[in-house]
Amino acid sequence: MNKSLLDVLDRQRRSPPPVWLMRQAGRYLPEYQAIREKAGDFLKLCFTPELAAEVTLQPVRRFGFDAAILFSDILVVPHALGQKVWFAPGEGPRLDPISDRRGLTRLQAELDHGVLAPVYQTIAAVKPELPGNVAFLGFCGAPWTVASYMIAGCGTPDQQPARLFAYRDPQPFAGLIDTLVAASAAYLIRQLHAGVDAVQIFDTWAGILPAAEFQQWCIDPVRRIVAMVREAIPDAKVIGFPRGIGSGLLRYVEEVPVDAVGLDWTVDPVFARDQIQRRLPVQGNLDPLALVAGGTPLDQAVDCILEIFSERPFIFNLGHGILPQTPIAHVEQMLRRVRG
Amino acid sequence: MNKSLLDVLDRQRRSPPPVWLMRQAGRYLPEYQAIREKAGDFLKLCFTPELAAEVTLQPVRRFGFDAAILFSDILVVPHALGQKVWFAPGEGPRLDPISDRRGLTRLQAELDHGVLAPVYQTIAAVKPELPGNVAFLGFCGAPWTVASYMIAGCGTPDQQPARLFAYRDPQPFAGLIDTLVAASAAYLIRQLHAGVDAVQIFDTWAGILPAAEFQQWCIDPVRRIVAMVREAIPDAKVIGFPRGIGSGLLRYVEEVPVDAVGLDWTVDPVFARDQIQRRLPVQGNLDPLALVAGGTPLDQAVDCILEIFSERPFIFNLGHGILPQTPIAHVEQMLRRVRG
Repeated sequence: MNKSLLDVLDRQRRSPPPVWLMRQAGRYLPEYQAIREKAGDFLKLCFTPELAAEVTLQPVRRFGFDAAILFSDILVVPHALGQKVWFAPGEGPRLDPISDRRGLTRLQAELDHGVLAPVYQTIAAVKPELPGNVAFLGFCGAPWTVASYMIAGCGTPDQQPARLFAYRDPQPFAGLIDTLVAASAAYLIRQLHAGVDAVQIFDTWAGILPAAEFQQWCIDPVRRIVAMVREAIPDAKVIGFPRGIGSGLLRYVEEVPVDAVGLDWTVDPVFARDQIQRRLPVQGNLDPLALVAGGTPLDQAVDCILEIFSERPFIFNLGHGILPQTPIAHVEQMLRRVRG
Repeated sequence: MNKSLLDVLDRQRRSPPPVWLMRQAGRYLPEYQAIREKAGDFLKLCFTPELAAEVTLQPVRRFGFDAAILFSDILVVPHALGQKVWFAPGEGPRLDPISDRRGLTRLQAELDHGVLAPVYQTIAAVKPELPGNVAFLGFCGAPWTVASYMIAGCGTPDQQPARLFAYRDPQPFAGLIDTLVAASAAYLIRQLHAGVDAVQIFDTWAGILPAAEFQQWCIDPVRRIVAMVREAIPDAKVIGFPRGIGSGLLRYVEEVPVDAVGLDWTVDPVFARDQIQRRLPVQGNLDPLALVAGGTPLDQAVDCILEIFSERPFIFNLGHGILPQTPIAHVEQMLRRVRG
């Protein structure tokens, strides 16, 4: 059976388009909540292969999505570089913040693949369980986004600590980015060897940088990661997801040789069709709140996206992760609409 | 004496460019802190003409900026529509949230200009004190941004409450936007009659909407405000500042007949020069964190902006409000660099 998502990454148009949702293994699912409770700690869930495999498979079983995405977190990379990472209940991720250049010296130079072994075992456990038409995606965070959490120790409204660190100490900051480039590439290569069909690079915080810093800390590092992955695995498929970068998308797709680019929900689909999708397949970009709202607004939003992107290779997705308060009935409504 | 900022709004290039800073009357100034303490409450400061006039003038006196901007807040409009507004110390604005369509019925249909009289008195008090070459700016919040605070009752990471309200109850929400369009236009007209030379419309939260909603809740309402202001005052000068809209800037400047557009710090200056500044004057867009950082990164960021925007009409500014932790010496460094 063909995996329609991989066909799209090969620049073939598929109708209906393949569909999956960012964070599809998540809190909106009661079966996820049950496993999450059983695991207790979030990181423990990520690092227990049988549980992580189960939550990876749950949304595919329930909804028949065209892709499964590895259940994990972008912060397992700093964790495997020796930085303390934990998840405070209801508060999001926390890390022991790196407040100055001295803090950087506490990091390991290379990823400890022993720490990440359970991730690779999860991939091996999921792989044989997936239907033949379902693509399997791995992922990592982009260096800028991961670095911004490593420095702040948490998410902030506009990641000021990392931006200020980069202005004040550009050389040490560039060293951190270099470490993350090498670590991310090594991590993605291992994921691909373990069995994922393609990988997505999440640059959640790409959109808060001025143009020069966006070039330096987002475009260049992600381009280097893609090059390193392709040096090891020449036909590796990569989806980029630089959130909130607006007109910067033009530069991103010109300079980063991804196979597809994810569009956040604020990207104008007409702009994206005319300026981006002519170059490469796009993925997106339903507003996660339209999925929470349901009803007519959801149908209208889905129709608008389908109409605009259907002429060329396209993957239907949200423009950001699914929200915990999303009713399951709305996911079903959306799927019926997409699949016709 | 010519006001160089008004020359730029008349599409004349000025060298050096006029310069002012968003939130230039603010917490980074010790003389502001002293008055703020004296006033006690933030809204009381906004509504006490002699104090509001004093803080409006302070940054012009200290730095010789080319514009003064009225010291006030975008939330005085909901306040004058009958919604309770207050400022919790260290927490930002708070409003009695409008959680459903019934909440909307508690609002007045029209602005109470009696409540806003101290604002107009502040303008009258500032006007004669300004040097002849200094432009005087009034402002208001754009309807979408103001509505998003009215519904949430506070700032949130991505103003979900208002976005969800608009999906679920589009008609009542459109009614709120209509009320704010009329109120904002009336408010700006009064400010112009009271003595400001030009007005700026701040759409801080324009960047979190999908394209269709951006058109409906940002572009169309602001276009209507500009039309209403120009109907009353045909030569009224208006600066638009739609923050974070990326490629949506193209649509904004095509559809909203502003005299200049403010660019936030994430807008690529090369894109803005080629796509925006060819149509109309631009204002911006130094990263407020570069001003906090100072030193070489600040000089480089200033030089980059000057080099790219100097060929056409341009107003130097930040790409968002000045941050409270900004050292005064860095503002002086920036001014020396801009003025050469």
